[in-house]
Amino acid sequence: MAPFLFPCLLFSEILIILERLLKKCYPVHYPEMEITKPTLLLSEEIARRNIQNMAQKAIDYGLNFRPHFKTHQSAEIGEWFREAGVKSITVSSLTMAIYFAEFGWNDITIAFSVNIPEIPEMNELAGRINLNLLIENTEGLEALQEKITWHTGIFIKIDTGYNRTGIEAHRTQLIDELLAGIQKSPLLQFKGFLAHTGHTYHANSTNDIYSRHFDALLKMKSLKARYSAEWPELMISLGDTPSCSICDKFDGIDEIRPGNFVFYDLMQYKLGSCQLSDIAIRMVCPVVAVHPSRNEVVIYGGAVHFAKDSIINIDGKPLFGRIVIEHEGQKILLDEKNYLHGLSQEHGILKITPRDLQYFKPGNLIEIIPVHSCLTANLMGEYLTTKGEVIKMMPFY
Amino acid sequence: MAPFLFPCLLFSEILIILERLLKKCYPVHYPEMEITKPTLLLSEEIARRNIQNMAQKAIDYGLNFRPHFKTHQSAEIGEWFREAGVKSITVSSLTMAIYFAEFGWNDITIAFSVNIPEIPEMNELAGRINLNLLIENTEGLEALQEKITWHTGIFIKIDTGYNRTGIEAHRTQLIDELLAGIQKSPLLQFKGFLAHTGHTYHANSTNDIYSRHFDALLKMKSLKARYSAEWPELMISLGDTPSCSICDKFDGIDEIRPGNFVFYDLMQYKLGSCQLSDIAIRMVCPVVAVHPSRNEVVIYGGAVHFAKDSIINIDGKPLFGRIVIEHEGQKILLDEKNYLHGLSQEHGILKITPRDLQYFKPGNLIEIIPVHSCLTANLMGEYLTTKGEVIKMMPFY
Repeated sequence: MAPFLFPCLLFSEILIILERLLKKCYPVHYPEMEITKPTLLLSEEIARRNIQNMAQKAIDYGLNFRPHFKTHQSAEIGEWFREAGVKSITVSSLTMAIYFAEFGWNDITIAFSVNIPEIPEMNELAGRINLNLLIENTEGLEALQEKITWHTGIFIKIDTGYNRTGIEAHRTQLIDELLAGIQKSPLLQFKGFLAHTGHTYHANSTNDIYSRHFDALLKMKSLKARYSAEWPELMISLGDTPSCSICDKFDGIDEIRPGNFVFYDLMQYKLGSCQLSDIAIRMVCPVVAVHPSRNEVVIYGGAVHFAKDSIINIDGKPLFGRIVIEHEGQKILLDEKNYLHGLSQEHGILKITPRDLQYFKPGNLIEIIPVHSCLTANLMGEYLTTKGEVIKMMPFY
Repeated sequence: MAPFLFPCLLFSEILIILERLLKKCYPVHYPEMEITKPTLLLSEEIARRNIQNMAQKAIDYGLNFRPHFKTHQSAEIGEWFREAGVKSITVSSLTMAIYFAEFGWNDITIAFSVNIPEIPEMNELAGRINLNLLIENTEGLEALQEKITWHTGIFIKIDTGYNRTGIEAHRTQLIDELLAGIQKSPLLQFKGFLAHTGHTYHANSTNDIYSRHFDALLKMKSLKARYSAEWPELMISLGDTPSCSICDKFDGIDEIRPGNFVFYDLMQYKLGSCQLSDIAIRMVCPVVAVHPSRNEVVIYGGAVHFAKDSIINIDGKPLFGRIVIEHEGQKILLDEKNYLHGLSQEHGILKITPRDLQYFKPGNLIEIIPVHSCLTANLMGEYLTTKGEVIKMMPFY
């Protein structure tokens, strides 16, 4: 068998070389400044391109674009959206709404079913900007009726199948009751129905994302059909990065609210929402130790830098990030047999094939493409752009 | 069978009532101030008791107590240790060492195998305080030899079986090589061997923790026996909360470095390191929605508040926290059938039995006992004590 094995091995080596050549010149390069500890690197160019693409898609489909700012949490990155024509935004907390309002955003939806204890502060904000809140139960509505003294937009939160928050679209009795309550409250302005089709994140295939989005579309359209005679201005607002990135049917929808797309990540890549070259952030980490006896490399970069979301790797094990190394002045994305395999508080454990161990020396810097950019960015507090600029995020969530 | 079933049910109900009565008056009460969003509540009384108990244990066993400060990350809580007689501390990063040095801590071990790019900054710190660093390879040693200009203590990091960082105790050739290098460098002072028996966290039983700790003890003692003739001052430093809390054999050990014990958490409770009443922190969260159709309650409190470590619940599913509710002025710990079952960015999903759904109303506050206090505290940035005081943590990790 040796004569057959030999050319096979050669062929596989050629494939590897070809693969590497194709992946060379991978677009993110970090500046010539000294990085000494885990640092979240951001390509402004890629992020701006992602913003531009989604803004254009919204225009193409005649949708209001109300991007979710919980992924980047940064006033400065917010300006990149403003330059792409964005005027209305989504946030996930009152804290974040107050932060962005300070930077001139005056049309904000807090896409989180109203947190009753915060209503007095929400009311203050509603006195200064156009604020939209979400309700999904009579308790939320009654608390708003009691405490809101400024005009406030109200969306009814619909559960399209994610089963986290919201009212199922067929529960029209409860929806009728809420609408009757809104109608009695001159300060509460009914804006429409809002959903987050978050179960696209659990899709098993791209087709699955299409079908979950389409199912959500049908549910939201049924509500529009039922209520638009009485509320002709009502809007349908949907938003999750997988559907907004992949799907091409948005009829009946008035507004999209994706957030993650500004950076994307490995989870989105696995879902088919983006290419690897669309991922705008990476964590630069120093190598701390190389353990050839167990094919492992230890990096400075752990759960307090990445957070702990993982996807399943080709070997069936959890993957917390993919690895980019620098070799002879070129950035090389290593294949999936090399990956961030474990995280403790500050340590990351890379699984590295014997062939690729050569790229790792204590003190060297490597880059990790993260699994979930929202949680990773949230932990880091700031970005270093590939141009060498430090961009701050809001102080604390 | 009915006549037998009936008294059985009654008996189980009696047990439940007894359990509740026993758990009433659960010690943490938060102050009468208004909490409107996820808030990390800290009982100073419990934390001080945990500190006192561990400090006393160190005295009882003749050990230097060098607590790890990565769990609380707060200068103010550091003072509680100082009041308990602590003079030397452990941290996990240079950033944290610099932070605590500013608050008068002048004997610090950075318990993380030396991060080569940061050595110049470590050297600056070594000029101001007694700093100990860890090495586990020749690259780390050579970088220190090249860049250290102040007296610096050096521990050799030993891997006692956790398989994260360190040198296995039998690899005496490498240890000899490192010691020879240290001997040649007058500024590097060999302090001893340091290990973190982190695999006690993966123990299946309390006995398992004993045996892993005992195995680590044997390995460290073998090193002490081998090298103490030449280095009579060498110390053996061990430290993980499960061993330090549970075990009662520390012969041959000179120093312990536990960290988590200041707060403990559900993971430690599951391991047997503490009682539930020793857990010093809880997250107070507002209830957002109640969904009886799927026995779920949605709270404001998600992955950006708790982090995503989980333990396996009695139903075989991941548990992210246990629930304390207030009923008729009493705090009640609900049983494990009620638990924090899922986390997205800001939402938490509680699984609640039909019987206990009555305790949850939108707008009410509940408390969650977290699974991993280190990662939870790290995300929150500050504590609210049960006395109503706000305690800040270091700004960013």
